[in-house]
Amino acid sequence: MLMRMSTLFVRTLREDPADAEVPSHRLLVRAGYIRRAAPGIYSWLPLGLRVLRKIEGIIREEMDGIGAQEVSFPALLPKEPYDATGRWTEYGDGIFRLKDRKDGDYLLGPTHEEMFTLLVKDLYSSYKDLPLSLYQIQNKYRDEARPRAGLLRGREFIMKDSYSFDVTDAGLEESYQRHRDAYVRIFDRFGFDYVVVKATSGAMGGSASEEFLAKAEVGEDTYVRCTKCDYAANVEAVQVRPPAPQPYDDLPAAHAEQTPDTPTIESLVAHLNERFAREDRPWAAGDTLKNVLVVLKHPDGTREPLAIGLPGDREVDQKRLEGQLEPIEVEAMDEAELARHPALVKGYIGPGVLGEQGSSGIRYLVDPRVAQGTRWVTGADVQGQHVMDLVAGRDFTPDGTIEAADVRDGDHCPHCDEGVLESARGIEMGHVFQLGRKYADALGLQVLDENGKLVTVTMGSYGIGVSRAVAAIAEDTLDDIGLCWPRHVAPYDVHLVAAGKDEAVLAAADRLAHELADAGVDVLFDDRAKVSPGVKFKDAELIGVPTIVTVGRGLADGLIEVKDRRTGERRDVPAEQVRDHVTGLVRA
Amino acid sequence: MLMRMSTLFVRTLREDPADAEVPSHRLLVRAGYIRRAAPGIYSWLPLGLRVLRKIEGIIREEMDGIGAQEVSFPALLPKEPYDATGRWTEYGDGIFRLKDRKDGDYLLGPTHEEMFTLLVKDLYSSYKDLPLSLYQIQNKYRDEARPRAGLLRGREFIMKDSYSFDVTDAGLEESYQRHRDAYVRIFDRFGFDYVVVKATSGAMGGSASEEFLAKAEVGEDTYVRCTKCDYAANVEAVQVRPPAPQPYDDLPAAHAEQTPDTPTIESLVAHLNERFAREDRPWAAGDTLKNVLVVLKHPDGTREPLAIGLPGDREVDQKRLEGQLEPIEVEAMDEAELARHPALVKGYIGPGVLGEQGSSGIRYLVDPRVAQGTRWVTGADVQGQHVMDLVAGRDFTPDGTIEAADVRDGDHCPHCDEGVLESARGIEMGHVFQLGRKYADALGLQVLDENGKLVTVTMGSYGIGVSRAVAAIAEDTLDDIGLCWPRHVAPYDVHLVAAGKDEAVLAAADRLAHELADAGVDVLFDDRAKVSPGVKFKDAELIGVPTIVTVGRGLADGLIEVKDRRTGERRDVPAEQVRDHVTGLVRA
Repeated sequence: MLMRMSTLFVRTLREDPADAEVPSHRLLVRAGYIRRAAPGIYSWLPLGLRVLRKIEGIIREEMDGIGAQEVSFPALLPKEPYDATGRWTEYGDGIFRLKDRKDGDYLLGPTHEEMFTLLVKDLYSSYKDLPLSLYQIQNKYRDEARPRAGLLRGREFIMKDSYSFDVTDAGLEESYQRHRDAYVRIFDRFGFDYVVVKATSGAMGGSASEEFLAKAEVGEDTYVRCTKCDYAANVEAVQVRPPAPQPYDDLPAAHAEQTPDTPTIESLVAHLNERFAREDRPWAAGDTLKNVLVVLKHPDGTREPLAIGLPGDREVDQKRLEGQLEPIEVEAMDEAELARHPALVKGYIGPGVLGEQGSSGIRYLVDPRVAQGTRWVTGADVQGQHVMDLVAGRDFTPDGTIEAADVRDGDHCPHCDEGVLESARGIEMGHVFQLGRKYADALGLQVLDENGKLVTVTMGSYGIGVSRAVAAIAEDTLDDIGLCWPRHVAPYDVHLVAAGKDEAVLAAADRLAHELADAGVDVLFDDRAKVSPGVKFKDAELIGVPTIVTVGRGLADGLIEVKDRRTGERRDVPAEQVRDHVTGLVRA
Repeated sequence: MLMRMSTLFVRTLREDPADAEVPSHRLLVRAGYIRRAAPGIYSWLPLGLRVLRKIEGIIREEMDGIGAQEVSFPALLPKEPYDATGRWTEYGDGIFRLKDRKDGDYLLGPTHEEMFTLLVKDLYSSYKDLPLSLYQIQNKYRDEARPRAGLLRGREFIMKDSYSFDVTDAGLEESYQRHRDAYVRIFDRFGFDYVVVKATSGAMGGSASEEFLAKAEVGEDTYVRCTKCDYAANVEAVQVRPPAPQPYDDLPAAHAEQTPDTPTIESLVAHLNERFAREDRPWAAGDTLKNVLVVLKHPDGTREPLAIGLPGDREVDQKRLEGQLEPIEVEAMDEAELARHPALVKGYIGPGVLGEQGSSGIRYLVDPRVAQGTRWVTGADVQGQHVMDLVAGRDFTPDGTIEAADVRDGDHCPHCDEGVLESARGIEMGHVFQLGRKYADALGLQVLDENGKLVTVTMGSYGIGVSRAVAAIAEDTLDDIGLCWPRHVAPYDVHLVAAGKDEAVLAAADRLAHELADAGVDVLFDDRAKVSPGVKFKDAELIGVPTIVTVGRGLADGLIEVKDRRTGERRDVPAEQVRDHVTGLVRA
C-alpha cells in the first residue's frame, strides 16, 4: 500500500496546541493523527485511524483466537435495563442522558453489562449453551467532570468489552484465565512497556481482578511494585499482610493515664516521650492507635457512621477506602454529626465505646496491622486521657478489618515480605475481573443445569480502552523529536523520503515506493516537490513511522539510507538491496 | 475460518417476531442476525455483524480505490457548527439533542457536513491541497417519528458518508463522476437488483443528484422508469418535458362566461359539456387550468402564500412540491387565510389576479404543461364565472414554473418521449449529489487559488446506508424459506451439515470442515449432535448461506451433496472432489 505525503490528508504543526497537557496529546495533534471536536471528543484523521485500526485488529485476532464471538450493541440505550440494576441513578452526573421525541428516557452507554446479560438471557436457557464469551469494539460515553490529556480521558471513546458466561465458579476461573492470557498476548503485540497489577473489583462482587497498566508518569493510576518479587498492585488493591497473632500473657494490663491537651497524634507522642519515656526507644506515632470517624453515603441516600482504627503514623486513603466500599461514597464526619454521638470524645476516641456492641453502636473496622496481640496507646474516651498497653484481642475486639490506610514507598511487600514497595504511575488500559453473579442476579439470567434446576450464571468482565491505547502507546514510546511507534501499531511500515529536487532522486524514490508497496509493505512516501529535505525529515520524525528510508545524495554512489526511528541508527544500503533489506525489517 | 453451530451465538426462531412488518426484518430476527434493543435500535449478533463487515469491506475497498481517505468523526457533536448552518433548528424533532453536565448543548450527528467542512478548513488553505475526498463509516442518529421495518428505518444506523472538495465546478463534476462510478462497482458487488434514478437535491444548492435504490415493494421511495429508454427518476425529481411554444395568432380572444355552481373541476367539466359542447371531443379536466393556493412555511417562521397553476386533471403532489422547496414546508391554505385575500374568489380563482404583478400580489407558478400558446378554461375571479380560450403567454404570464403536479403511470417519458413512465417502489440505499458551496459558504471554507485570491470550495456529498444495505439486500434476495445471501455479502461461504448420528458421517463432515477452512473457505459447520437433519436443513435454509453441503446418507456411496441455496439445485459430488468443487464455487 502506497500513500503519498502530497495526497495524505494531514497538516503537521510546529506549535503545540494550547490545550494539550501531556506529550502524547501534543504530538498526536501536531503530527495530524487526531483533532479536537469538543472537550474530550476527538475526530480521527487518516494517520490516527490507521493506528486505531491496527490496535483493533490485534485485539480482534486475539479475542477470536480464544473463541470469543463478536457482537455489536447500540450506543443509544433505553433506560429500563439500567434502572433494573440501579446504575441509572448510581452513575449520577457521569453519563449522558437524553429523551426521544416521545419523552422516553435514554442514555449513551458507558458500559454494556446490562445489555450483554439481557441478550444472553434472551437467547440461551441451558447449561449446554455455556461457556460463552462475547465481545464488541464500540463507542462508549462518559460525561467526565474533567476530560483531560486528549484520548487518555475522553467523553466519547472506543472500548473493547467482553463478558464470559459460565455455570460454575471453576468455569469462570477458566474463562478468566483464557482472557487474561489473551490480554498478555495483545499487550505484548502492542510492543510497549506495561505491567499487570492486582486490582480491586469494588462492590462488583467478584474475586480476581487485575489491571493492565501502561507505565507512564502522566497516568492517573498509582500502583506499587515490590523491589524483590514480581508483586504489583494498584494502590487500591494492596492488601497489607497482617502480623501473626502474638501471645499477650506477659503483657501488662491496660491502664488509663492523664494526657492533658493531647488531641492530636503529634501532641500525644510528645507527651508520651516527656512523661512516659522508654529506655529502649522513644515513643513514635506508630505506637498509637488512631480512630477516624467517617460517614458512608449509600446509593439509596442513607448515611451510616463508621470508625476506622489504624496506626497513628498512617492516614486514611480515601480512594483505597472507597475502593473497598464502592458504590458507597465516603465523607469525613463533621462536628455537628460528631456531637450527635455523646460517647465520642473528640481527640480521645478509643475502642472502648466503638463497635456494634460498644456504647456508641458505631461499626468499628481496623487496619490489618491492628492484629491480635498488638499493643497500643489510644484514646480513653475521656477528655485528656489515653489508655496505654491496650492489647487487641484481649482488651477490645473490632468488628472486622478494612484496607483503608495509605500505602507508602518502603512498606513491606505483602507477597514476599523480603522486598519493599515502591510506587509508580500508570495508565489503565485493560481490566479483567470476575464479575460473578451481580448482573445475572439483578436481571434474572438463569439456565437449567444438568439436573434441570435453574442456576444463576456467573460472569467475567474484560475491557480494553482502544482509543486510550493509541495515546498510551504513544506516550510510552515517544521521544524528544516526535512519535515513535512500535512496529505492529505504526500507521505505515516505512516512511520514504525523496530528499532533493534532482529528477533522478525523485524517479528512484518513486520506483522504490512502488517496489516496496508491491512487496506488501505499507509505504508513506514523501514525494512533495517544493518541500525541503529538512522539513521532510522533521515531519518523518514527528509522525514516527519506525523505519525511515531516504533517497538522496548517496544515490550517486548507489546508496540509500535506512534509519531506525527509535535508535536513530543509520545504514547505507546498496540501492539494489534496499527492497529486501526493508522487507526484512518489516517482517521481523 | 470454521465456526460450529454448536458454538455460534445464535438461536433461530420458528415464530415471526410480533413487531416485524417486512420480510427482511422478520427473517433477520428469526435467523439470529439482529435483535431489537429499543424502537429503531438494534444489536448485531455474530451472523449479522459478519454481513455488515463484508458490506463495509466492499465499500472501503472501492472508496480507497478512488483515493478517498478514511477519517472518523465523533457521533456526539457540539451545537455550534450546526447553529452556524441553521440545521440545529431546521432538524426540528428529527435529531437527538442532549446537554452535558455543564449545560452545554450537544446533538447525536444525523449527518456530518458541518464537521467535514470545518475539518478541511482547519487543515487546508490552498488550491494545491485539492481535490480531496474524505469518507467515514460510522453511527448516525435520527429521532424518526416512525422507526419501521427493522434496519430499513432505524434511529441508530450506520452510514458511509463522503465528501469531495474542489476549487472549480469542473473539478466537482469529475469528483462526482468518480464517486458515482465507485458506487456502481459497490452495488454491483453487493450482488442484488438495484436502479440508479435521478433525484432532487432539494435546497442543498447542488445540481446533479442521483439515488441508488434497491427495487423493493416495501420501499418508501417511489420512482418511475421509462418503458422504452433507460430513464429512471425518483418521483420528486421527474421534470416534465414542456410542450414547444405554440403560435396563438389564430386563436379566438379570451371571453368570460357564466358558469354558475361550478366551483370544482368536475362540476365545471359537466357544465362545459352541457352548455359549450364541442364537436371534435368532449371537454375534459385536462382542458381546464386549476389554481391551487398553498402556504409556504419558511424555516425562520415566516409564512408566504403561493398559487400553483396546473391542468385540472392533475393534483398537487405534496412530496414533489416540498422536494423543490426544501427546507420550506408546505401546507394547504385554509378558509381563514383565503379570506384575507379579497381578490381570491374561492372556486373561481384565475390568473387574472395572480402573480406578483396581479391584484392579489401572490406569487404564481405553473406546471410546465401550461406553456406558451396553450389554451385553457379557468376561473374568472368572479363568483360563478370562468374564462374560456385564455392563452398562456398572450393573456397571462406566470412568475415561473414549478414541478408540483403528480406523476402517473402512462405519462410520457421526459427523456425519449416515445416510452411512457411506469412506477415502482424502492429503498434508498445510496445518494450522490453535487452539494455545491452551501456549507463552504456558511462555514467559510475558502482556499487561495492560483492567483492568490480566496475562493469558496465546492463540495460533493455521497452517502450509503450501510446497516440499511444489510436489510435491503436481504429483502431483495430472500425467498419463501429464508434468507438467501449473494455470495460476496454472505456471513459464511458454505453451510456444512452433518446429517445423521452415524460416527462415520460426523467424522467425515468434521474432516471436510477442516479441509475447506484450510483452503480459505469460511465454513459454518452444523455439528450439533442431538439435532435432527430436518431441523438442520431448516436452519440452513433460514440462515441463507449460498452453498449448503450435506454429508449424510450418500457417504456410503462416497457421495456428498452440494446444494445451491438460491436455485435449490442439488448435485452429488464424489467425496474426494468436494473440496475443490466447493472452493471453485466460492472463488467463482
